[in-house]
Parts: sequence; C-alpha cells; structure tokens
Amino acid sequence: MTRGERDKVDAGTGSGHVPSGPALTRNGTNLGRVGGYNRAVILDAIRRQDGVSRVELAEQTGLTNQTVSNIVRRLLDDGLVTESGRTPSRGGKPRTALRVRSDACYSVGLHLDPTMSVTVLVDLAGRIVARRRRPRRAPGSDPARLVRGLVPGVTALVADAGVDRSRVIGLGVAVPGPLDTSHGLVVEPPNFLNWHQVALRDALAEGTGLPVVLDNDATAAAIGERWAGGAAREGSFLFIYLGAGIGGGIVHADQVLRGDTGNAGEFGHITVVPDGIPCRCGARGCLEAYCTPAALVAELVHRHGRRAATRIGLTLRPETIRNDCVRLCRAARDGDPAAADVLDRGADRIAQAALTAVNLLDLGRIVLGVDALGPAADMLRDAIDRRVNSQAIARRIRTVAVEPSLLGADAGAVGAASLVLHGRYSPGWSQLRA
Amino acid sequence: MTRGERDKVDAGTGSGHVPSGPALTRNGTNLGRVGGYNRAVILDAIRRQDGVSRVELAEQTGLTNQTVSNIVRRLLDDGLVTESGRTPSRGGKPRTALRVRSDACYSVGLHLDPTMSVTVLVDLAGRIVARRRRPRRAPGSDPARLVRGLVPGVTALVADAGVDRSRVIGLGVAVPGPLDTSHGLVVEPPNFLNWHQVALRDALAEGTGLPVVLDNDATAAAIGERWAGGAAREGSFLFIYLGAGIGGGIVHADQVLRGDTGNAGEFGHITVVPDGIPCRCGARGCLEAYCTPAALVAELVHRHGRRAATRIGLTLRPETIRNDCVRLCRAARDGDPAAADVLDRGADRIAQAALTAVNLLDLGRIVLGVDALGPAADMLRDAIDRRVNSQAIARRIRTVAVEPSLLGADAGAVGAASLVLHGRYSPGWSQLRA
Repeated sequence: MTRGERDKVDAGTGSGHVPSGPALTRNGTNLGRVGGYNRAVILDAIRRQDGVSRVELAEQTGLTNQTVSNIVRRLLDDGLVTESGRTPSRGGKPRTALRVRSDACYSVGLHLDPTMSVTVLVDLAGRIVARRRRPRRAPGSDPARLVRGLVPGVTALVADAGVDRSRVIGLGVAVPGPLDTSHGLVVEPPNFLNWHQVALRDALAEGTGLPVVLDNDATAAAIGERWAGGAAREGSFLFIYLGAGIGGGIVHADQVLRGDTGNAGEFGHITVVPDGIPCRCGARGCLEAYCTPAALVAELVHRHGRRAATRIGLTLRPETIRNDCVRLCRAARDGDPAAADVLDRGADRIAQAALTAVNLLDLGRIVLGVDALGPAADMLRDAIDRRVNSQAIARRIRTVAVEPSLLGADAGAVGAASLVLHGRYSPGWSQLRA
Repeated sequence: MTRGERDKVDAGTGSGHVPSGPALTRNGTNLGRVGGYNRAVILDAIRRQDGVSRVELAEQTGLTNQTVSNIVRRLLDDGLVTESGRTPSRGGKPRTALRVRSDACYSVGLHLDPTMSVTVLVDLAGRIVARRRRPRRAPGSDPARLVRGLVPGVTALVADAGVDRSRVIGLGVAVPGPLDTSHGLVVEPPNFLNWHQVALRDALAEGTGLPVVLDNDATAAAIGERWAGGAAREGSFLFIYLGAGIGGGIVHADQVLRGDTGNAGEFGHITVVPDGIPCRCGARGCLEAYCTPAALVAELVHRHGRRAATRIGLTLRPETIRNDCVRLCRAARDGDPAAADVLDRGADRIAQAALTAVNLLDLGRIVLGVDALGPAADMLRDAIDRRVNSQAIARRIRTVAVEPSLLGADAGAVGAASLVLHGRYSPGWSQLRA
C-alpha cells in the first residue's frame, strides 16, 4: 500500500460516486484514466470469485490476455492479489488461481443509529475482523460530545484486533440522511434531535487521523451488500433498511445511484398515506411515520389499547422501543391477533412503497435489512414479493427477487467500512473522467 | 454519413442505454472504445453550444488540444460539424467557431398515443423539419392494421420534406409502456386495448426499411428534452408526461435511467391512494387512475354531478375526452368551483407523487409535459414546486426547479426522433465497454 494510494481515499472521488455539478459526460477520457479503470475492473472480478485464472479474466472483461497479465502483475506486486492453487480448465493444463489478499488492507466502519453505534474492522474481502456494539444513551445527545466519545472506540478497535495501523486505509461512517456530502455535514436527520449541520466527517478525520468517507446509512448498506455479496449482488437492486428509521440504497446497473446531492434512496419518505400522520421530516404520510419500531408500537396501542401491548410483554418505554418491537413481531408471528393486525398493516405499507420504487426504478431485486423487525422478516418479504410480482407494471417481463440482507444486523457498519473499499477499489465511470 | 455509421443504429446499443444482463462494470475498456467515446463527448459539447472553439472544447472536456483537434478534423470530414464565424476570446485573436451541421442527418419520430399519432422529421440539431398529426379512431384498433396504416405516413413525411432519404438514419418510436425492449415488443400497455406482445419494432423496420428504435413515450420525451434542451437539460431531471396516460422519464447524471428491462420511470404507477380505485395496470390507487383526462372528467361527474360538467360545456363522450379535459382545465382556471376542486385534488396527487420521486431519486429538476392539461400547467407547476421544495428530505440542501417542457405538445414525437440521434451520437458509458 503506497502512501499515494492511501491518500486517494481522501479525495472522495471514489468510483460509483456521481458528483453533483457539471455532468459526467462533458468529460472525455484518456489512456491514464483507462489504465486505472481496467485495474479496478480486474481487481473487482478477482474479488467477486473464489479463484479465477488470467484467461478467465480476459474472457469475462473483454480485455486482451496481455492487458490482463500486465494488470495482474502489478496487483501481485502491490500485494493486493495472491496466486493460490489451480483452477480447472477445459482441456488444457490447470491454470493458476488468483485470489484477493484479504489482509492487504482494512477499513473501519462506523454506523450511527439513534439507539446504538456499531464499529467494525473489515478486511479487503469484506469480512469482519473485529466488532464493537454500543447502545447510545439518548438520541438527542450533543454531537460534539458524541464525536469525542467515538474516537477512542475506533482507535481501540484497530489496536485490539492486532492489525498494523498502516494497513487501515480509512474510516467509513454511515448515518441517517439527509447529508451535505460535499461538505461532509449531517443535516438535521429527523431521528437525531439536536443535530444541525454537524461537520461529522472533518471532526472524525481530525480525531482519528484517518481519511473519512460519510454516507447515508442505507446507501452504505447497499454498497456493503455489493462489496460482500459477489455475484448475488451484481446488476441492480434496492436495499431497504428497516431500522430506527427507514432508508433505502439504490444500485443501478452496478453503479450506486446517489442523486444530485448524494441523498437518493429515501425509501422511508415515500408518501404512503395522502395527508397522513406527520413525519419527523416535516411531510405527512411518509412510510417512516408508520413503520418504524416506535410507530408500530404506537399503532398497536392506538388500535388495540394498552392492554394489547402489555399482554404481549411490551414496556412502552421509549428507551426500550427496539425490544418492544422485537416482541411485537414475535407475537404477530405466534398468532397474537392484535400484533398480527398491526404487522399486516405495516407490511402492506412497506409493500406499497416497494411497488412504487419498482415502478419508478425497474429493479429486478429487493434486499431487505430488518434489524428490530427481524422476527417478521419472512412475513415482510412475502408481502413485498406478492405485491411487486403481481402488480408491477413490468411484471410480465421480469420477476423481482426479494431477498434478505447478506449482512444482517451489521449491514450498516459493514456498509460504512465498504464505503472506503468501494471508493478505492470498485470500478466506476467517474474514474474515467479526464 | 457512411454506411457503417448508418448500420450502427440497428444495434440499439446506443449510448445511455443500460443493457440488462451482465453488469457493465465487468467490462474493461480499450483505446478503440475511448476514441469513439471522446468523439461523442466533443460532438455533444459542440451541439449544446451556439458556436464554440477548439480551445474552449479542450477546457470543457479535459481532453488535450491535440486530441480535440484530431477529433474535430474527423467531424468536419464526416460533415457533422461546420466552421462558421468567430468566437470572442480573452486577449488573443478570435477563434474559429464550431457548430453542428443540422442537415448532416435526420431522424423520424413517431409518437403513438391512445388518441392520436404524431410523426416528425427532426434534424441533427433537434429541430422539427416536418410534422404530421393524425387522430386515431379507436384506442382498441388492430395493431397489424395500425402498423400498415403508419408506414405510408412515415414515407410521405420524408418525401414531402424534400430531404435526401439517405440522410435519414432511423425511425424512433415512442409508445406507452411496458415494453420488452430486447425483443422490440409492446407488452399490453394499459391504455392500448387489444395490444398483446406486439412486435412493433420489427414490423415498422420491415415496412419502412429504416432502423427502428422503440422506447417508452415518457423516456423518449426525456431524451428529446435532453437532446434539444442544451445546457437547460444537463445533469439530472425527471420528465413527467401528463397525457392520455401518465408517464415519466429519468435522466440521472446525464445518463438515461432505464432500469433492468427498460421500463423505469413509471411515474403514473406510483401509488397515491392505498387500496384506491383500480388502475388499468392491475394495481390499485395509481396516480394514473386519478389524473388522466378521463379520470379527471369522471371525478368531476362523480363529485359534482353531470350538471357541473355540462355547465362548463363538457360532452362526456369518450372520443372527445381530451377536449373535455382542456375545457375542464380552462374552467378551473377561470374560477368554476367544481372544476377547480377537481383540479386541486389532481394537482395534489401529482405533487404527492413528485415528492416521492424526488425523495427516491434526489433530482434537482422536474420537467412537466402537459398535453390535455395545458390550461392548468401553471397551477400544476406551482403545486409541485410548493410540495417538493417545502417537504423533500433534502430541501435544505438544494431547490428543485420545476419547469415546463421545452418541446410542448411535440415532446413525444421529438423524443422518439431523438432516440435515434441520442443512440448514435450521445456519449454514454456503454460505449466504453470492451
């Protein structure tokens, strides 16, 4: 890992990141750009497969054998790739298998949620090497103090894992939107009281000494799925994150869809009820106003009374709302009629929003990250599947696959770490801009 | 125009077209691809400006002066660009201004709507050279007969315009979705009764002898806006088409967002009322079920009675529904309370759908094409503007511009013609695939 490479993360021009401002296609490209792009294409192809030969890489990428050989030689020299074992070949002699060196570099991922913070150390292969999970006292805690509280955790995580700190190429941070990505600001997320234009990126960069990349939590999770998911996450998909807030991340034709200001994918702010109940974002009738853990528990009480809630063991205290939601989902699964009614309504609204997203984006895959809604995951997946595959406008042309997250409860944190790896190593069109 | 160039349209790999199947980023790129891409970047930059010098092109595209000079020389040789006049320069001597030769080639655009068909001949600059507008008798007319009826119109349009037929590089066709773009099929559009898997592309190619590109009408209109709109349509925007059906076309970071099967942008099938009235697409509560001309007129009768309709001069006959809708909009504008009530409700639903689209896609611009809702255009624009700029999640980071279509009533047909020009001449990442 050269110093120059290490610095590249800082620029934040990571592949797949569509910058705002002047349009991409006003820029031509040149040979230098092409070299960097092809290197990323080859590394990405190696990373996504469990042992692949140079000949196969040439077939897969459309590059000449000579170009592939040259790039692979440099990847070996840089320690990013290793030769291990042989791949079977049709007819001829077995070929040397190339694999990514998972210990070539590491990235720290930090996921800030209203109720907890999760920090992970992830290797180049996308595997978790170390993890810290901390409940957060109050969602309204002072941002400056919070940042001061986070830095020692990051430092300790790396030190305790016994990883050479020079191999840690950056810190990715996943937070609820909206964000001002060009300035690294968190702009009043509806679920973080007292957060106004918090310069989180620069504060954490100063505190940790690492290059920091900041992104929306659901977009980060989508990138994490893509990074860790190999062939199962190629092409296009919508990642739906049902956590303390509701978010979405969109990958379209293998590129992250970020929108003009980096705030695309706000699945939780699809209007599901016209003139519905007020959402913390300032609008009315958003999905998030109905389907967060707090909203589902409130709906149970509203529709079926406090006794229906206490009967299934809910505490109805704000600080344990996540546990209440898990209990609510379990009760619904076990046949409690009040709980099932509330979950059915919630699933119906989530499915409605998913149908809208599929009709707008024409995606062939939806990936569901559930967190506190875990025990209801299968039921939610079925509801989405039924709706989009019976009602989407292109239903006669393709079936939408609805699948659970590959990363589970760590999706946000692994996604955060993947921001750094993706920005450095994934092939993206923006790399080709002259 | 070489023969080889002419054939390229056939391939339908046009730039900006994101193919389904294997992901783009698995393909590396090479020098030959880069040359074609840079040529498209330069031509696009010349086309978007009213006279631009080689030096300015180099500054704008990041390409070297030498590369720009080489590409421009070939564009001059191919007759696509012309030198005319001088551009002012800072300090030094005036520089030769480059402009696109609008008569270098032409494209035919055909827009099929349930109530009419519009055919235009468009030059390389995106200007209409000839136009034919024909009402269609019945939306359920037999597709085979319809295709036979269309071909003479296309042939006559080109002949009457006095344009050398060898300069016509293709026929673009805009129809309501959903489409099977890989096979050129129109797949049961909700508004075209009796259309099932109609092989429109091949039938028209055979009938006219021209290469044919088929796309969704609203996506075509979005591409038309981009082609004809110059700097005003750079970057990202959502085109909303309010016609006999309701559609949407998405341009994200200067690339057309097509989705996995070419059916992205179905703005009319955003759910605006949960469990609402049935839509012709098979779902319930879609925007299209509430805000087409037929739906608005039906709502007037439903809410205010037939007398409210006859009072403002509506015929309430299906075949003149478009005129009825124009009258309804005029009456609303002139203060008729029943008409205003219906239009207010419609505008509210359209604005709600627009807010959802903005939150999902994070677009900075919405372009509105209105057709039969023409007299209500300003009111609709205001309603969308108010909603998205007061309630979108990223409202503190950017303002969404809400603007009328630059193409007006011809948006669909000019868009159709632009499909061919865009596919041939716009810079798109897919051109770089090895």
